[in-house]
Amino acid sequence: MTNPAKYHIGLVIFPGMTQLDITGPHQVFALMPNTCVHLLWKSLQPVTSNEGMTILPTTTFDDCPSLDVLCVSGGAVGQVEMMRDAEVLKFLQQQGKTAKYITSVCTGSLILAAAGLLQGYRAACHWAFRDQLAMLGVEVGTERVVVDRDRITGGGVTAGIDFGLVVAAHLCGQETAKLIQLLLEYNPAPPFNVGSPENAGEVLVAQVRKLGEQLIAASFVQTQQTAKLLGI
Amino acid sequence: MTNPAKYHIGLVIFPGMTQLDITGPHQVFALMPNTCVHLLWKSLQPVTSNEGMTILPTTTFDDCPSLDVLCVSGGAVGQVEMMRDAEVLKFLQQQGKTAKYITSVCTGSLILAAAGLLQGYRAACHWAFRDQLAMLGVEVGTERVVVDRDRITGGGVTAGIDFGLVVAAHLCGQETAKLIQLLLEYNPAPPFNVGSPENAGEVLVAQVRKLGEQLIAASFVQTQQTAKLLGI
Repeated sequence: MTNPAKYHIGLVIFPGMTQLDITGPHQVFALMPNTCVHLLWKSLQPVTSNEGMTILPTTTFDDCPSLDVLCVSGGAVGQVEMMRDAEVLKFLQQQGKTAKYITSVCTGSLILAAAGLLQGYRAACHWAFRDQLAMLGVEVGTERVVVDRDRITGGGVTAGIDFGLVVAAHLCGQETAKLIQLLLEYNPAPPFNVGSPENAGEVLVAQVRKLGEQLIAASFVQTQQTAKLLGI
Repeated sequence: MTNPAKYHIGLVIFPGMTQLDITGPHQVFALMPNTCVHLLWKSLQPVTSNEGMTILPTTTFDDCPSLDVLCVSGGAVGQVEMMRDAEVLKFLQQQGKTAKYITSVCTGSLILAAAGLLQGYRAACHWAFRDQLAMLGVEVGTERVVVDRDRITGGGVTAGIDFGLVVAAHLCGQETAKLIQLLLEYNPAPPFNVGSPENAGEVLVAQVRKLGEQLIAASFVQTQQTAKLLGI
């Protein structure tokens, strides 16, 4: 007799994702007791991240059980594609009907919003895309992790670890989340005090915006089109 | 004409690794300019982490160029196997002769020490394995990231992000490391103050030790054997 998992958590992966958006929360979720973590994609073919890391999906959209936690990460070129991918949006909408928590990390909130799952909620996003999240009718929170009823959303990339622990606390309780935090020795010590636009200063913020210029612009165009489609 | 990478960074991956040990620093390194990041293993066959995440190697040991940064991560059952894997230890010793920086995350320092590359240095390790690192003739540092000459080592799992940024600062300068930190929105906000044994308290520490009991014991046996082999 197998012991079926108590919780099913699904992380959507896709070509051009930012790998740490996925791997951060995955590491936390994988340590939750009685939990099955699914890496979801259209097929079981390998998926390569924006950084060139290739990860194998574990479960296809078609084979995905009803999820307790639906999680969409963001990142780079892939996020823009996902915002207009009918198959992905349909999968999110279907799972969103029954999931206990509908969640995202980084620009994954733009994908959730494109699926119509964040309007009327407060949510987080990577700092350089916050204005785009607002364009989709979402109230933007600048906290590291935003919890609004059954929506739990994290900020940019590395926020996925904080986010994962918050989700673990909601699903399994604070004691389990604390165990996981100590197991992962999550006692961060960033070498510089420049991790948010608020403390990085204007010059550094402008440099990062310049570096990401093309991506931010491509996402802006898609966000405009999505807003029009959603009638916002 | 292709523009050859200025820096080659190699991350050793292996079955039973802890995926965030690898994926954290990988995310940072992948954003360094003119840098080629290799995911190294014996073959190009998929490698499955302790958490069930399958990642494809990009480069075999045999095809690996001379590395600027050699990085060994740790984690779970796989780490114990790596400490006694002659092919892995030989590869580390060979690359160690020429690498600018010899580095590790988490219990990867036990593997580096098993290859004879950390004796006479200060180094970090996952907190639950610090005593084992000392058994191999390494001076244990409890800082998040320990820098001792050309050895840069990070503490447990999540320390890999702090570690990656420290390596980026050494290789590319502080300005580049700061850009990457802001890009990754690395402004951590752990939900609890329990990320190290010093602040978690005795009860939680005992619970995590109990959870990891078998693994810690298996690693202890291997560490004793390795120490004997090294004549320590």
